[in-house]
Amino acid sequence: MQLILLSGGSGKRLWPLSNNARSKQFLPLLEAPDGTMESMVQRVIRQVREAGLTSNITIATNASQHDIIVNQLGETVNIVTEPERRDTFPAIALATAYLTKKMNCPADEVVVVMPCDPYTETAYFRAISKMTEAVAGDKADLVLMGITPTYPSAKYGYVVPETGSAEVLQVKRFTEKPDVATAEKLLQENALWNGGVFGFKLGYMCRIIDQYLQTDTFEEFHARYSELPKISFDYEVAEKAQSVAVIPYTGKWKDLGTWNTLTEELSKNGIGNVILGDKNENTHVINELGIPVFCDGLKDVVVASSPDGILVCAKSASENIKTYVDKLSTRPMYEERRWGTYQVLDDTTFNDGYKALTKTITLNPGKNISYQIHHHRDEVWTFIDGEGLFVLDGEVCKVGRGDVVHIQKEHLHAVKALTKLTFIEVQSGDLLVEEDIERFPYDWGGR
Amino acid sequence: MQLILLSGGSGKRLWPLSNNARSKQFLPLLEAPDGTMESMVQRVIRQVREAGLTSNITIATNASQHDIIVNQLGETVNIVTEPERRDTFPAIALATAYLTKKMNCPADEVVVVMPCDPYTETAYFRAISKMTEAVAGDKADLVLMGITPTYPSAKYGYVVPETGSAEVLQVKRFTEKPDVATAEKLLQENALWNGGVFGFKLGYMCRIIDQYLQTDTFEEFHARYSELPKISFDYEVAEKAQSVAVIPYTGKWKDLGTWNTLTEELSKNGIGNVILGDKNENTHVINELGIPVFCDGLKDVVVASSPDGILVCAKSASENIKTYVDKLSTRPMYEERRWGTYQVLDDTTFNDGYKALTKTITLNPGKNISYQIHHHRDEVWTFIDGEGLFVLDGEVCKVGRGDVVHIQKEHLHAVKALTKLTFIEVQSGDLLVEEDIERFPYDWGGR
Repeated sequence: MQLILLSGGSGKRLWPLSNNARSKQFLPLLEAPDGTMESMVQRVIRQVREAGLTSNITIATNASQHDIIVNQLGETVNIVTEPERRDTFPAIALATAYLTKKMNCPADEVVVVMPCDPYTETAYFRAISKMTEAVAGDKADLVLMGITPTYPSAKYGYVVPETGSAEVLQVKRFTEKPDVATAEKLLQENALWNGGVFGFKLGYMCRIIDQYLQTDTFEEFHARYSELPKISFDYEVAEKAQSVAVIPYTGKWKDLGTWNTLTEELSKNGIGNVILGDKNENTHVINELGIPVFCDGLKDVVVASSPDGILVCAKSASENIKTYVDKLSTRPMYEERRWGTYQVLDDTTFNDGYKALTKTITLNPGKNISYQIHHHRDEVWTFIDGEGLFVLDGEVCKVGRGDVVHIQKEHLHAVKALTKLTFIEVQSGDLLVEEDIERFPYDWGGR
Repeated sequence: MQLILLSGGSGKRLWPLSNNARSKQFLPLLEAPDGTMESMVQRVIRQVREAGLTSNITIATNASQHDIIVNQLGETVNIVTEPERRDTFPAIALATAYLTKKMNCPADEVVVVMPCDPYTETAYFRAISKMTEAVAGDKADLVLMGITPTYPSAKYGYVVPETGSAEVLQVKRFTEKPDVATAEKLLQENALWNGGVFGFKLGYMCRIIDQYLQTDTFEEFHARYSELPKISFDYEVAEKAQSVAVIPYTGKWKDLGTWNTLTEELSKNGIGNVILGDKNENTHVINELGIPVFCDGLKDVVVASSPDGILVCAKSASENIKTYVDKLSTRPMYEERRWGTYQVLDDTTFNDGYKALTKTITLNPGKNISYQIHHHRDEVWTFIDGEGLFVLDGEVCKVGRGDVVHIQKEHLHAVKALTKLTFIEVQSGDLLVEEDIERFPYDWGGR
């Protein structure tokens, strides 16, 4: 069985902790059973493994999330990166093409597609296991998960099953986001919420894809991705399918996508360097900055701070922040990359347009920054911890604490961490953007 | 007439904006008539000048406030620095000795002593003018200002005058912080609050001081400062005086020493990079960080952020923060110095005790950092704006944008700004404290 996780979203509603480079599913705010902190996607992967579902996991995502996935999940998952953002049908098609054309999976292999961040319980993964059996046993071409509704919501799609008490129910019809009155009637018909979890055999999906795009290799499929229609999997596959079954799941099923819902699941009222006075009520404070946050006398408030900014908001008002966040967006101030992390410490533009940007950069052991040049900026690196190899215009030297290197524009440079390596970088020039980078191959020769 | 302003206090109750290096009176939060922002002490000095009181102003303060006073008030005021913190009598005695022994003021010169930060109106300075006249006219040895009380407060000292309707009333007795019931009786006697403003002739004060310390020069007086008793001016002078008069002042008289009182006088709800949603009520946000602060749905809350930390507090709870601030105190993260300002961007200690501290430093034009060595740290400076002269072990060179200097421990260095000069400093070593500095003379030779 192959599991495809869909990872997308910009997560503006969890500003300032989430941004385009760190969607909500990557925020390390949940407490794992061992007491460490984990992100939503780390929690789902842990739950998949604990349920013994499969170790064949492929994450379909976009380029901006590639590095953070590698950083959070290691290289134990496959990552398929969309060349551009389209919709769920093309994203699932790309992952399907990867499984057939790159991994050589057979046509009768069972595939389950799920979102990467639902906050659920063990029974959810048991339901996925039953979906797998139903697909393998040919109960239907497409098997999906139906969430037992807790109220007549107008914000979910509904799946109306045939009446019956079997574990696998045939689907009579779909209803997209109804009004509340319609939702109440749907509940009387035992309708279920569409959980966005789909099971099918690989060959079934391939036949649908073949109508749009047939290629010999995955690389060609990837290159011609824009030929796939911009349509959701629900519309293109689920609603057109001749034979659809649903397996119900009853239990916790939450989208921790707003501060209001996320804080309900936090194990502590203060995360990070936080001091709480004794007059707070139902207040949650998450501080990712080094400086302390002190709160007192607050009721039903969420405080969140990161290098991107500071949010102080009544929980009841926190669902509306999206409209303000566009005004607040700046360059990313913190990013997880495949090689480690960086944080912006200072970002100054002088009157004449000259800019200076100061970062602290940490490379994980064995990782390296690619051999590169910048056309618009100089960089000064002061190494403050760890050991590494630094290359400047082909000359390699060992660097460590107290060493300073001055990299002028148009000079080739790279650095590799031998141990966890930290340095302060001061960029300066007329144009300071992440895109001012030209990469070249470099052979570390086994170092 | 000579005006002595007393400037002290650590201002923990306005954390995180105030700290030991920046007491409440130096926070630039008030709006001046011309629309610019000014601090409490800048406001008082402006009011003194607008009232045409005097241009002979001496500020008595402690060493930690010396540089910020120079920075905020320029060199238009005299500054007398206590060698150690004692009490108001020795502080006023030191300023008196400065006026007699250094400025050669005559014994019949009128002196008025006042706090540096009361938030008042024009009439307050008219009352000071009347005090000056009363002292000059020998109405009493000591003339003080009585504030017309607005409620029977238990936190102020009271001055009980003889009955009468004269502008200058003789004082019958003093009562230190009474209970509320006593305060109510005092109000029936037309008692006034003691405003801490005192007028006297220089010779009068000199005779009192002579009982404790007689020196030929101000320098000797300064050196023997610890011989003066640790006692307040009220106890040592006012309560012992044979002839005391009071001049009443009726009008605004506030100590903007807590977030609750300070925010009442702010002209805007958001100061700095602040975005307010439309659901806030009576909420004030002051942001001294570069990153944005977004607030919504808050009622009666103050939010303040600075490089020292972030406060989010119900206004009603803000008077109690002092008890928590001791836990929050770190090294100063922002300081105004006589040469300019610095801000700490990052402060990291590694597992083995090695430290790195990154600052942005700005020198005002013409100012210099003293010629110095450090015994415990290396420094790397990357110049990002302006032009200056840099000295390393006696060698001078011109520096500007893009230049990098690496100053290793035990090497003499200095820098002088030709234009406003900004650089990023990365300090690293085993001990990173402001005190690790040894200063040497350096002759800039008119440069």
